[in-house]
Amino acid sequence: MLFHDLIINNDSPIYEQIENHVKCSIHTNMITPDSKLPSTRELSQVLGVSRNTVLVAYENLEAENVIYTKKGKGTFITKSAFERYGKKDYNSNNKMKWNVDWETKANAYSIEAEKMDIIKNEIPWSKDLISFKSISPDGELFDLEEFKRSFLYRLSVEGNKILNYGYARGYKPLIEYLKQYMLEKGVSGEHKDIIVTNGFTEGFEMMIEAFTNLGDYVLCENPTHNTALRIMKLHGIKTIGIPMLEDGLDIEKLEQYLKKYQPRFLYVIPSYHNPTGIVIGEKKRSQIYELCREYEVPIIEDGFTEELLYGSSHITPIASLDKERNGVVYIGSFSKILFPGLRIGWVMGDNRVISLLESVKRCKNIHTSSIDQGILYEYLQSGILKRQMKRMRKSYKERFEFAKQCVEQYLDPAFVWGDGGLHLYVGLREVSARLLLQVCYERKVIFMPGDIFSLDDRGENTLRLGLSRVSLEEIETGIKIMGECLAQLRNKAE
Amino acid sequence: MLFHDLIINNDSPIYEQIENHVKCSIHTNMITPDSKLPSTRELSQVLGVSRNTVLVAYENLEAENVIYTKKGKGTFITKSAFERYGKKDYNSNNKMKWNVDWETKANAYSIEAEKMDIIKNEIPWSKDLISFKSISPDGELFDLEEFKRSFLYRLSVEGNKILNYGYARGYKPLIEYLKQYMLEKGVSGEHKDIIVTNGFTEGFEMMIEAFTNLGDYVLCENPTHNTALRIMKLHGIKTIGIPMLEDGLDIEKLEQYLKKYQPRFLYVIPSYHNPTGIVIGEKKRSQIYELCREYEVPIIEDGFTEELLYGSSHITPIASLDKERNGVVYIGSFSKILFPGLRIGWVMGDNRVISLLESVKRCKNIHTSSIDQGILYEYLQSGILKRQMKRMRKSYKERFEFAKQCVEQYLDPAFVWGDGGLHLYVGLREVSARLLLQVCYERKVIFMPGDIFSLDDRGENTLRLGLSRVSLEEIETGIKIMGECLAQLRNKAE
Repeated sequence: MLFHDLIINNDSPIYEQIENHVKCSIHTNMITPDSKLPSTRELSQVLGVSRNTVLVAYENLEAENVIYTKKGKGTFITKSAFERYGKKDYNSNNKMKWNVDWETKANAYSIEAEKMDIIKNEIPWSKDLISFKSISPDGELFDLEEFKRSFLYRLSVEGNKILNYGYARGYKPLIEYLKQYMLEKGVSGEHKDIIVTNGFTEGFEMMIEAFTNLGDYVLCENPTHNTALRIMKLHGIKTIGIPMLEDGLDIEKLEQYLKKYQPRFLYVIPSYHNPTGIVIGEKKRSQIYELCREYEVPIIEDGFTEELLYGSSHITPIASLDKERNGVVYIGSFSKILFPGLRIGWVMGDNRVISLLESVKRCKNIHTSSIDQGILYEYLQSGILKRQMKRMRKSYKERFEFAKQCVEQYLDPAFVWGDGGLHLYVGLREVSARLLLQVCYERKVIFMPGDIFSLDDRGENTLRLGLSRVSLEEIETGIKIMGECLAQLRNKAE
Repeated sequence: MLFHDLIINNDSPIYEQIENHVKCSIHTNMITPDSKLPSTRELSQVLGVSRNTVLVAYENLEAENVIYTKKGKGTFITKSAFERYGKKDYNSNNKMKWNVDWETKANAYSIEAEKMDIIKNEIPWSKDLISFKSISPDGELFDLEEFKRSFLYRLSVEGNKILNYGYARGYKPLIEYLKQYMLEKGVSGEHKDIIVTNGFTEGFEMMIEAFTNLGDYVLCENPTHNTALRIMKLHGIKTIGIPMLEDGLDIEKLEQYLKKYQPRFLYVIPSYHNPTGIVIGEKKRSQIYELCREYEVPIIEDGFTEELLYGSSHITPIASLDKERNGVVYIGSFSKILFPGLRIGWVMGDNRVISLLESVKRCKNIHTSSIDQGILYEYLQSGILKRQMKRMRKSYKERFEFAKQCVEQYLDPAFVWGDGGLHLYVGLREVSARLLLQVCYERKVIFMPGDIFSLDDRGENTLRLGLSRVSLEEIETGIKIMGECLAQLRNKAE
């Protein structure tokens, strides 16, 4: 590019013209210190001059300390050349500075996104912490060998095709697999289709983007998944929380709010609800479905960690009640079971819903990584997930039960909720979880304060303990320390 | 899940209780035909009863044709059981039907996204077509062996960590690599940072989402990249087109519009511009930058296929003029060079810009696939891209030059634009490109009509020929057919 505009004339030696061009380019700010020049071979081709001529020009420039050579790397512009030939007013002239105040350019959406960004605003993770914050899966339970095999096999089957552009809806074999997978869970595919997304988050955001308007009401559990909450708030949704009881959301309130608000959707997490860990039973699932049908309010069902439920038997998501109807949009993900780093989820819903999401997806990122979809497909269809699930359930269950016991022993909780997933939810007796977190942090223990999941101040005395990335030993030590910190706070209060 | 609520009592034989539970679940719509039951071993564990008891229950149910067994697959509910025990009013009761009219639930955004979805609205690709539509890279030029090596090596270095959640900004080694890569292009990283995105599309959408408001003006080339155009329209941006001249956008108009509209951004594609194929020269790049600086309008620079420019020498994007200032946001991608199926791009801009995009990214899909970033990093840093680029440039250049020659020979064009990228841009003499496409389609040749890139009716007589996926033979045959179709249309008109 540097020499793109150079047209060699007959007025002076060619090497001089090359040298001057480099110096002028420095002067007009077309290059910066340490930017690379073409090789002498390339430049001679580009300019159509002999390589020797170029060599002479480069030697002269090097002698003047305008350029320098790094062995095996190439030829670069020196900093001092810039000081010599660069525009003198560079730093002194204010107009040259052009400092964009991006703060004022940011709009309400991005400012709000940052304000609600818990990763930026919460205590950072460090190595010597016992962290109960995460509910991402334990990487030790992944089968890396099978992952490799899946990659190599899919690549050998598909060849370079899988590395080129794919379909917005997703990799076809994976879609077919997921349809069968949903059918085995009892979810009929009649009039329904699937689109593969970059995890649950993208699926949920697309639903909100495509089907809600500013100021719409959406019902959800209170507390609920904080990312979903954040997305709804960012899109100007009025979220109405339905209080959680020990067996899931309060059905009476659900009916009352369906009537009162005529909401756009109900968003619900029936299995190992985030953050409470509650699994809604069959009867209540049926009640929820029937009420939404009565009031004609579609359901967005979050399939969050429902794979942990049990055995190779298939659970019945609320979507299974939808049968040949079209009121439930199901969002699934393997991120809490398999490989979150792959970012793969899916949305299953009415054909028309998926068709619209397909067009939206094309405006967002064209499609989800094909090779990742290929790997996941191969991994799933090998049947290894089922074997792996046994190990996972066993491992997580052990931690869950032990942690529950520790919480009861050390924390004297107002309540402990959770049905055996990756986390449990603790209500403290009149102690702010934020305050406790502050004290615990000094003792190197952290957890997720409940307020980030809450639509009101109900979450203040609650916390979520994520168990998937901590050992039994860490669980006991951590919760014990939490107990000591609690006692300390109580003593102070007295 | 099916047996989650079953509590065994002493009032009747256990196997009978199991049988009744299955039938009741059918009646209450908790399961569907073909849904799977837990294995006898699992169920006996879950219920805490002997496996024999479960076996008896299953045998009885099978005898009654309520369930059936597939060898090696498991036990499933029959369809006829459903007819027998399912609710009778299932199909007859209208209220039960609950047909959500998703069409009316869709909002303006998704309706518009679909309307502008060219993939849905254009002629579909089929095997026997000569298609000049695509500008995605030729997969034959990918190095699959190196791709495999990169995967295996990165996985061995990172282990299961790379399969778990990563950072919203991206995979750190890749970010560092890209910073160095940009520096070699002359783009200083001072006060700037990088975020990895799912391709150019996501990077651009995030910029528009984070930094524009409904009704803002954005300047862009006319014609321009249709996906960018679509995204801006969807976000309520008023796009103002700057006409393209043979050497890039009209500088006088740029100044006039900067003054008149005080736009939020200038969006510009300086290298192998899509669709015209024009490469803007150094002088004009500098003029564009200086004008935007004067009027304090930030630039979004689309690095589209600039890698094709030449040699291992480094080109100077407009961003290189930004030096320690912060007015240019550069969006890069390897999708037109390497593996589009991986969906990896990046945004480089002022620290504050990237920090805000980081929070936005967390609300969209948390982060881009870590394994894909790892593969790309390994592939890039192996140095193979440089070797590969030679092959690519040679291969694409050959096609480009041959195609240009064919266009001039067979199409008698008003103009042919393009500087040697993956495509060229043809102006027809008073013939609608849509009309020509219709006729050509019957002869099995397709291309991209210019109107989809255009902000007004200027694009009507233009078309883009994508050359990256066609052989020399196809190029000649295809363009010859186009010429015959043109003649046919002209004869008709006379």
